[in-house]
Parts: sequence; C-alpha cells; structure tokens
Amino acid sequence: MRTSIATVSLSGSLTEKLTAASSAGFDGVEIFENDLLASPLTPEEIRARAADLGLTIDLYQPMRDIEAVPPQEFERNLRRAEHKFRLMNRLGTDTVLVCSSVSPLAADDDALAAEQLHRLAALAQEHGVRVAYEALAWGRHVSTYDHAWRIVEAAGHPALGTCLDSFHILARGSDPKGIEDIPGEKIFFLQLADAPLMAMDVLQWSRHYRCFPGQGGLDVTGLVRHVINAGYTGPLSLEVFNDVFRQADAGPTAVDAQRSLVLLQEAAGIAAPPASVEPTGVAFAELTTPDAGAVSDLLGALGLRRTARHRSKPVELWQAGAARVLVTTDPVRHRDGLALAALGLESPDPAAAAARAESLLAPVLPRRRAPEDAPLDAVAAPDGVEIFFCATDREGLPNWREDFAPLPEAPLPDAPLPAGRCGEPGPAAPLRIDHLALTQPWHQFDEAALFHRTVLGLRPQESVDVADPYGLLRSRAVTNGDGSVRIALGIGAGPADDAGRAQHIALATDDVVAAARAFRKAGGRALPVPPNYYDDLAARFEFAPGEAETYRELGILYDRDEHGVFRHFYTETVGRVFFELVQRDGGYRGYGAQNAPVRLAAQHALRPGRR
Amino acid sequence: MRTSIATVSLSGSLTEKLTAASSAGFDGVEIFENDLLASPLTPEEIRARAADLGLTIDLYQPMRDIEAVPPQEFERNLRRAEHKFRLMNRLGTDTVLVCSSVSPLAADDDALAAEQLHRLAALAQEHGVRVAYEALAWGRHVSTYDHAWRIVEAAGHPALGTCLDSFHILARGSDPKGIEDIPGEKIFFLQLADAPLMAMDVLQWSRHYRCFPGQGGLDVTGLVRHVINAGYTGPLSLEVFNDVFRQADAGPTAVDAQRSLVLLQEAAGIAAPPASVEPTGVAFAELTTPDAGAVSDLLGALGLRRTARHRSKPVELWQAGAARVLVTTDPVRHRDGLALAALGLESPDPAAAAARAESLLAPVLPRRRAPEDAPLDAVAAPDGVEIFFCATDREGLPNWREDFAPLPEAPLPDAPLPAGRCGEPGPAAPLRIDHLALTQPWHQFDEAALFHRTVLGLRPQESVDVADPYGLLRSRAVTNGDGSVRIALGIGAGPADDAGRAQHIALATDDVVAAARAFRKAGGRALPVPPNYYDDLAARFEFAPGEAETYRELGILYDRDEHGVFRHFYTETVGRVFFELVQRDGGYRGYGAQNAPVRLAAQHALRPGRR
Repeated sequence: MRTSIATVSLSGSLTEKLTAASSAGFDGVEIFENDLLASPLTPEEIRARAADLGLTIDLYQPMRDIEAVPPQEFERNLRRAEHKFRLMNRLGTDTVLVCSSVSPLAADDDALAAEQLHRLAALAQEHGVRVAYEALAWGRHVSTYDHAWRIVEAAGHPALGTCLDSFHILARGSDPKGIEDIPGEKIFFLQLADAPLMAMDVLQWSRHYRCFPGQGGLDVTGLVRHVINAGYTGPLSLEVFNDVFRQADAGPTAVDAQRSLVLLQEAAGIAAPPASVEPTGVAFAELTTPDAGAVSDLLGALGLRRTARHRSKPVELWQAGAARVLVTTDPVRHRDGLALAALGLESPDPAAAAARAESLLAPVLPRRRAPEDAPLDAVAAPDGVEIFFCATDREGLPNWREDFAPLPEAPLPDAPLPAGRCGEPGPAAPLRIDHLALTQPWHQFDEAALFHRTVLGLRPQESVDVADPYGLLRSRAVTNGDGSVRIALGIGAGPADDAGRAQHIALATDDVVAAARAFRKAGGRALPVPPNYYDDLAARFEFAPGEAETYRELGILYDRDEHGVFRHFYTETVGRVFFELVQRDGGYRGYGAQNAPVRLAAQHALRPGRR
Repeated sequence: MRTSIATVSLSGSLTEKLTAASSAGFDGVEIFENDLLASPLTPEEIRARAADLGLTIDLYQPMRDIEAVPPQEFERNLRRAEHKFRLMNRLGTDTVLVCSSVSPLAADDDALAAEQLHRLAALAQEHGVRVAYEALAWGRHVSTYDHAWRIVEAAGHPALGTCLDSFHILARGSDPKGIEDIPGEKIFFLQLADAPLMAMDVLQWSRHYRCFPGQGGLDVTGLVRHVINAGYTGPLSLEVFNDVFRQADAGPTAVDAQRSLVLLQEAAGIAAPPASVEPTGVAFAELTTPDAGAVSDLLGALGLRRTARHRSKPVELWQAGAARVLVTTDPVRHRDGLALAALGLESPDPAAAAARAESLLAPVLPRRRAPEDAPLDAVAAPDGVEIFFCATDREGLPNWREDFAPLPEAPLPDAPLPAGRCGEPGPAAPLRIDHLALTQPWHQFDEAALFHRTVLGLRPQESVDVADPYGLLRSRAVTNGDGSVRIALGIGAGPADDAGRAQHIALATDDVVAAARAFRKAGGRALPVPPNYYDDLAARFEFAPGEAETYRELGILYDRDEHGVFRHFYTETVGRVFFELVQRDGGYRGYGAQNAPVRLAAQHALRPGRR
C-alpha cells in the first residue's frame, strides 16, 4: 500500500521534513497546518517541492471546531473553511481532516452536526475537496469512531467520509472490529500511531508520547486488518506527536517511520519482505583504536591470545575459545580512543539476513572492505556499529577467517594462563562473548530496539531503569532464542551524558574467581568495588565460609534470580570500552542490573575531577 | 524546625550530596542505602564527613518487604535487619525506615504484621535503633497511613513508630486530618515531597515526578499543619525522586530544596521570614555587549534615545518613556555577544525585598558594584540574571539614576521619530517595557518559577507548550498584580538547544503600525513573517479593508483573546537578544503564544546553515 507521513511527525522546517520523507521512501505526506504557516514557501512552491521529491500531498490537516455550533458561528466556520479549500487547491491536495469539536460552543446534537457537516462537504465539493471527519479521543461530544461514522452516514454527502486514527480508537479502548461495518470508500483516510501503554490523561498521552507502530503497546496491526477488510484503499499514513522525535534529526526518524510501516504490512499480511533470520551466535567483536597498546595488555590479562593477523590490514585477531575480538589499529579514529566499531553475528544465511535488512531500510555497507577480503554482508546499526552477517568456518560460504593468517602458536610472554592449543581456553579463560552492552544515541533508543528486533531478528526483553549517580539510565536487552546472542541496549540520562557513551563486552567464563585472580596476576586493573557493597551482600545472602571474602578481595559482584547465580567483575575503561567477565550458573537470565548503580558510581569515581 | 533531605533527592556521589546539603543549610540527611553501597567511604568515614559538615544522619532508608511473611522468610529478614542495625551504629543514626511490604509473600494479616514488627522493634532496641514503619501508596496490603498506624499501635513496642510521607498520603487521596489522632511521639519521622497533579500510575508518578513542596499540586502545607498539631517534633525531611534532579547539579538543587522548606514553614505558620514585597514596575533592563555598535543601531531604530551615561563606567542609558535600557560595554563578556545581564525592578521597599530574598537563600550580590555607585540591593536569579531592587527617583532612597550624567538633549542623527522632551516618547516610540522573556537553564525551570514567585513576589500564570521546529518549548509567565511587571520564563527542548538560550525584551507602544514603519525607515531589520501566516489570519479573522495587508507588509503578528487584541513584531536577533514591539488593546492578557511557532521557525530560518 502507499505510505504517507504527517509533517508534524518529523523535526525541522517544512522543506527538511519533505526531504526526509522522500529520502526514506514515503509516497506522500500530510501537511500539518502549522508547518505550512511557518514556511517561507508559498503553497505553489510547496506543491512543486513535494512533486520534485516524488511526494503526493495526501491530506491537509487539521480543521477544528467546525460542527454542531450555533448558526452564526457556523457561518464564520464556513468562511474559514473556504479559505482553506482555496489554499488546498493551490497546494494540490484534495482531502482535509476535520477533527470532532472540542469547543464549548458545540452542542450534543448529532442531527445538527450531520447537517452542518453536509453543508461543509457541499462547499468542499465546489472546490474539488473531500472532508474526512475524525473523532478525537477527547472530542467534546464525539469521541469514538463509530459515533463519528454515524454522523457521516446521517449527513449523507459524497464529499464527506471518515478518517480513522489508530491512536484515537485504541487509546479509548474501542473495539476496532466495527470498522468492517463502514464501507471502504467512505473511509477517506487512515492515520496510524502507536503509544506505550501508560495510565495518563489521554490528551497528554497523545500529544507527547505517540510512537511508530510496533514501538508501543497498541494493536495497530489488528486495526489495520479491519480497515483493509472494510475495503480501504488509501495510504497508510503515520501521524505521531512525540517530544523526542520533535528534537531528533528528521532523516533517521523518517527511516524509522517507514520501517515501521514495512513491518506493519508484514504483520498484517499485506506485504512480505524477506523473512527475518535469527543469528545463532557472536562471531566477533571488532574494536578500533589509534594505538593497540592498552587494549592488547587488557585482552592479554583477560586470557585472550593473539592468534592471527589480517593478511593486508592492521587488524589482529584475539581469541579464547569462541570469544573472538578483532583489534584494528586506525590512527584516524582517535576521537574516542578505543571503541567498538563492528560486531560479527553468526547467521544461518548471511545473504538472506542482509536482504531482510535492506528491505527494512537498514544502511547496507559495501560487501568488501578491500578487494582481497572475503565478501561479507553488513549493515549499520542506529548507533553506527557495523553488523556483519558471518558464516565462520562454514563450507561454501565466505569465511572472514580466511582473511587472517595464523600467528605462531607459542604462548605470548604476557599470556596469564597455560593454554592448550592456540585459541583454546586455559582453565579460567573466556569461553565466549556472553553479551555486549551498547549505548545508543539519545534520541534513538526506541529505534534501536526496533532495529535489533526486526532487522536482526532478536527478541526484546523488559526495559529496566538503572540509577547512575548523575541520572537515570535505561537498558533493554535483545537476545536470540538460546541466549547465545545477547545485546543490552542502553541510553544515557541526557544528550550530553558521558556515561551514555560507554560500550562494554562481557566474556563468559566457568570460573570467575580463577579468572579474576589470573587477571590481577597478569597486571589487569579491575574496577574497585566499595566495601559497603560486600557488607550488604552478606546481609542479603548466606554464603559459604570465606566466599564473600573472596568476592570482596577480587571485586566480584554477585546477583541471584529465581533460576540461578550470576558473578561478574569489570575491568578499567579504555577509551569508550570496558570488559566484564561473567559466570552464569543454574540458568541465571539477567545481566546483574541490581549491581549496575554500584558499578556506575565506581566508574564515575575513577574519572578525573570526581571525588 | 530542623530540616533534612534524603540523599536520593540529590545528584552525584554521596560526598557531593552531603556537601550540597550542608552548603544549603540543611541540619541533617537521610542516607539512602544505595548511596552508601556505592560510596568508597566506610560508614565511619561517612559519619565523620557528615559531622564535619554539620549534618546529623537522621534516618537510614529503606528496609523493604519485612513484615507479614512466612516464619522462615521472617527469620531471614531479621538476620538482614540485624546487619543493618549494626551498620547504623557505625553510621551514627538511630532511626530506620521500613516500607510496607510489596512482596507476593506478604499476607493480608494485620495481626501477623504487628507481631513481626514487634519482634523487629525488639531487635532494633537491642541495638539502640528505632523503626519507623511507613505505608507505601502501592504497598501490597498496607497502603494508607492510618492502616500503617493501626498496625504500629497494635504492635505496641516503644522502638516502633510510624513514618509519614506526604506523597504517599496525598497521592492516594487520603484525608490527612486523621494524622492528628496519632500521638506525636509515635510519629518517628516525616518525609515531604510534592508532585504535579498527573493522572498516571502512582509508582511511576512517585519514582520519576516528585518535586519539592510548593512546586507541585499537593497540599503539603495542610498536611504539615496536621503533623505539627499531632505533636511531631522531628525534622522536616525532603524525599524527592525526580529524573531531572538526578541529573542537575546538586548544589542548586539543595538550595532550591531548602528554600522550599522555608516557604513551607512560612505557609504552615511555623516560621516567619521577612514578608514578600511585590515589585511595582520595571526600572530597567541591562544589556552587556563586547561592542555597543549593533545594539545601539537597534535601540535607535526602535525609537529609544541615548539620554545619559554612567559617571564612571562604560554604561549608557537608552530611554523612551518609561522604557529604560542600560547598555554596558564589557569586552570580557564576549562569549554570548549581546546578553541581558540584569533587570531593575521597582520595589516599594528595596531593603525589605532584599531581606526576603536573602532569607530564601537567593545569592545576594554586593550592594555597590563600585564605591561611587548608589548602593543597590540585588540578588542573582537562577538563570544568572542579576535582579536589582530599585527606587527610581524616590526621595530618601538610593537612586540608581544619580549614577548617570544626562547627555545633551539634541535628537541623535539616527533618531527615527520626532520626540518631545528627551526621554519622552514620540508618537509611536516605546512607552515602557511590556515584558521580558528569559530562557532558564534546562534543569531549573521549576526552580525558576518558584524563585520568581517566592523571592520576587510575582504570580505564576499557566504553563504553555510552544512548538519550535526542533522541539517543544515550555513557557510560563510570572507577573505582578497590575501587569506592570511581566516575565515569561522559558525552557528549551533540551540541554543543547540553542533556541533555549534566547532572551527577549518586549516594549509596549500604543501604535505598533507606526512603530513598525518608523523602525523600518530607520534601517531596522524586522523578523520576516511568512506570507502563509497572513493567509491564515485572513481566514481566522475579519479585518477592516487594508488592515491585513498592512500587517503583512510590516511583519506584524496578530492575536486575540476574550479581552482584546494583541499586535506585535520582532526585530532580528543580536547575540542572545531580540526585541519585540507590542500593542495591547482592550485588556489582552497573553503574550501571543499562538504566534510563537511561526516566530521560532522564522528565527531558525535566519540561522546560518538552515534552509
């Protein structure tokens, strides 16, 4: 189906909004009146700009407080409406949204509303315009879609139809099934928005917290099915009022919006983009650094070993078991110091995963970074991290490991643990990457969750608040089915918050105590954990003799859920990156969120200038 | 009464919180457990630090999910509690907060709750500790203060009392009158928080939106009166969970917090700080600039004239009627270019106004900026603007005008309008300062409103949202009784938002059309208003022939309320400052908020790099 977006959903000037909508692949726009009023362009210029960008203008909106008013007031309203119909002719759009009245002048009189809407529609028709009447959830007398439709039906004018808005319908708890009783040709327009489920005043909820379908808790898909069943053939159009989107760059918001409509059509069975391909593991994490010294020391102390070197580029492969970390030395990327630049995900079908991503508007990266490299399918995540779809060591598929030449198997001088074969873990060395924690751009937390779910095929878990000393952070994990891919998406307290820039790699071990000892022995600096934390642990849990003392000595944190136990420690931070070594026992499912405030306070305490 | 604050109310590390509480004049603190856990200081060190800062530790909090649980669970809880009692001894605090249980293990059994709380209190007593039991508004079985008190009464242990929390009581809509039935000595603690009235889940409301008394919509004062009547003699203690305060600097937040308690005590009749003195007019606005060229051109084009010069400093007085603008050339303050640095408010009693401000912890500025100046009482507002309490040309009081030497009365070459006496308005020249619009630091919007109300004696009006193309702004006016002082406090969409840094001065005229013509003739650059705005005006209002065309030609904006009509135009922006010329007719009360989105879009369009 055709896709459209209301200009009020995007940030910026009207021309910025039109450009963003076009770039994201929308077919049309709704022009929000205030955007037009504030634009220096004439209606004719806006029409031409939209046409140049391949956009139709599907709706002009809104007209308010038109119907069921005293005669004199209604004459004024008709006069006002006629001005707007002329404007719409200049703009080249033929449908206007009329919202049910909120005016104290409006009477609770359906017959009067119908009669006046009939007159409005007659005037509209003279100007070649159609009127789409919509029930606002907080309309004074008309607040449900079926009520609005009864009035439209009673008015009985060919230029009068109804506009359905998923927010107004679902926020009121109306049953959308009745939509199928409306003739499709009388549904002049369909506006879509989702919203998180919140117990709050519906007007505030609507004006500040709407989001794109799939980002909230409303069953927008179900509603769309009913509208399609009714025979609606107009565009799917997004109208989202959101305080964050108003501030965010229009370009990414528009892409996010268009992606939500692809997904909505997939869910509603209207369209079939390539199916999602769930990743089966983490192939590698790639760090970039202007100088590999500090990170090499850190990886060595963690029990990883340098096992291979890229054949043509300054990239080294560090490994322990299935935990693989690429370290790329790139003197140009010095702003952040060490940063996580890319992530390799094992995919049963890398090409299909990339096709899925492309159909969902993920930025697809060139398949080869250099002519001699194995061709790899990759896309950019919203936080800029490059996601590679990998088939490590699988026959018949491009294998990124072939770009690397093995290094001699002799243990490195700084290797902390006796290891078996090169790349095999020593007794406490990392087994695999347990999870990654990646902070997202401030405006794009919901977008990031949607991207990871729909593009990468991961499953979002509950969102949790974490108290940092300098503000509240939010975190939400996305995982694959067997937990072999776990990414905790985080967001800082504010745009300028530096805690919001951290990235961390958690490595799994089956003996965190031995690993912590080895790490220290190899000269690694663990994050210091305050003694008060251990006093509290002793109050909360009963430990075997000496157990709590070991944790205290080694800076190991402890958590327990209904399934099992989680023990973990953190390294110092280098650039934007720090590591965690974790041991999960008995099926513990979380990430130690209980301990995050202590970890964050300790990290702040290490920053220069903090007490 | 003694004042206290929970460490969770302030941002930062525990030591930062203690320091801020002490500097703001608090007598004590509640130690929030997570702040202690995350601190590198031992309990003894925290105790010593607090003592050094003159703070007592009034409460340790919270203990959760203690009571009405199965026996085995309760034994574990006692074990945990004993750990905490020992910790409290080390910390030097004797009262612990126990919140009513939210655990699914808790039974709806008051007798069991009383019995277990009795045992807890007995154990506490052995350690010299008292237990203050509080009903959480979302407690599983105990959610009202009277229910919690019945259980405390039934338990009948001297080391067990109740803790009252204004949020939990008022958010549930409980009648606080019943507090007077509780013996004062059994009210072990009183926690205070306000909150804006919002229809939302009470837990979310409590965790994210609490604010200081007087900043929200709850009758905290009335509750405190009942608690005092009951005979409570402990501290007034603030416990505020607020997402913004978590991010804001602890120092100003603590001052704001302490000010709220002074005001609360004033309102409850417990304390009598010097009375508030309502200002009676705007004496002057003072601009600073590294180079007076551009602002001089602008003021001249607006019809103000340079009438006097400071006797010893590079300050010039520009004037038209009662509109007085000081321009200080200060090459050091070049970061912002032109900025509004100070505001003179006419005060019936400047010394009393300053005494009021000082009692409310406003930063008092030195009375003389130079030895030869008239002594002026002044304080700093939260946005850094200096507020001078003035008695312009009033006998027996220091007169700031005496610091200025009049300039010859000859009209300046660039004066746009024939004027009468020097400083008298020409036919369309400004009559007075109509209002000022000052953007506030991002974290301090509520603080700013409280400051202007309580320190300056102004009256807050409704808060309004204004759509900027790049985010939603908030604006709230504060005025004196006759409208001769009007300040619109604004806040940007985010911390990094540059629209959030603008300051503007609105000058009143009784002929805005003539003023706009004169301004243009004198070479002034008015903000261009898009033609679409005027098409819409013509649709909304019926004008006399030619009227709308005049507005369009001159960039005049138009608004109407139930009282009258408002016409206004804006100048270009210089540095952080722009001017507005306004004409109010028929008692119009607003500020043209309806037109603000158009104005903001036009201002953005003029910035480099914007289309």
